Amino acid sequence: MQTDLTILVVERDKTKAHEIVDALLDGGWGDVTVISSPDAIEGAVKQRDPDIILIDLADPDRDTLEHLSLVTNARNRPVAMFVDHTDEQMTQAAISAGLSAYVVNGLQKDRIKPVLETAIARFRMFAKMQSELDAAKQALSDRKVIDRAKGLLIRARNISEEEAYTLLRKTAMGQGRKVIDVATALVTAAELLQ
Amino acid sequence: MQTDLTILVVERDKTKAHEIVDALLDGGWGDVTVISSPDAIEGAVKQRDPDIILIDLADPDRDTLEHLSLVTNARNRPVAMFVDHTDEQMTQAAISAGLSAYVVNGLQKDRIKPVLETAIARFRMFAKMQSELDAAKQALSDRKVIDRAKGLLIRARNISEEEAYTLLRKTAMGQGRKVIDVATALVTAAELLQ
Repeated sequence: MQTDLTILVVERDKTKAHEIVDALLDGGWGDVTVISSPDAIEGAVKQRDPDIILIDLADPDRDTLEHLSLVTNARNRPVAMFVDHTDEQMTQAAISAGLSAYVVNGLQKDRIKPVLETAIARFRMFAKMQSELDAAKQALSDRKVIDRAKGLLIRARNISEEEAYTLLRKTAMGQGRKVIDVATALVTAAELLQ
Repeated sequence: MQTDLTILVVERDKTKAHEIVDALLDGGWGDVTVISSPDAIEGAVKQRDPDIILIDLADPDRDTLEHLSLVTNARNRPVAMFVDHTDEQMTQAAISAGLSAYVVNGLQKDRIKPVLETAIARFRMFAKMQSELDAAKQALSDRKVIDRAKGLLIRARNISEEEAYTLLRKTAMGQGRKVIDVATALVTAAELLQ
């Protein structure tokens, strides 16, 4: 476990809070902040910007769960939530909201470390897929512009697609810019001059 | 919980197996198969093609874990694994191998239903992202071919990019084919005729 991670713990029950802190310290965690009220999460997150968040809630409703996922930025950091009860809709909502762990009736001292490790692994896998998806969408969107620019060059200069791309790339290199930027400029200019 | 799902349970311990079956039947599950040995999983999966798989393993090593993820096809159906012990590397491997739930020291009767519901929700979210990613990659790959075809038409007919695409689309519609298929044919033909 990386011991340089900062963790924010949200736990109303004092005895449980002590247990969690002990488990984290035993697990090699050094920087642990505990707050007792879920209402204080938003402020604590802004102030501390923790690497990971552990929330224990007896019986959250769906609104609370989604609000907490939002203020903890659960899609951009691992957030593990422990609850006493759930139902199928709540579980679905918890996963869709991006919680990296959603554990029902399972907050025992010896399980905290493995749950957090699972949450971190789950979060990393999700982040990797998300960034692959973003990159693929960006590539597709860039390609649309680059292809319009190539089309303009092919027609204006009667050159092949490969020659058009080479021309865009050389121009970009010569100006220290990206191909997508040169292509965007060309497409914009063509629209203005039309 | 959808009660029409078939579930395969892998549990060596008879008492635990009874507990799991009871929990599943209580949870509304009707079609439950139990096998005692992990070695029999591959055959049972092929024969039954279960919708979801629950595996309880005392202390798996990494090879076993990855082998089981493979034979259960854990990327294509929810697989929940319960283990007694783990370490950070094992946890990482379990998540990377596509297990939808990896629960350490947490096989209690009242937790089986929520764990399986979480696994199903987690699996669906993963499948949705995976299919978005596949679609984006396919779109990018199709676009490369379509753009080469457009480039050929722009140059050969001295038409604009939009006109080239319209021509491809009309040809595809006229032949009851997809634009990508017409584009592929054109690119192939151009390569042959070069």
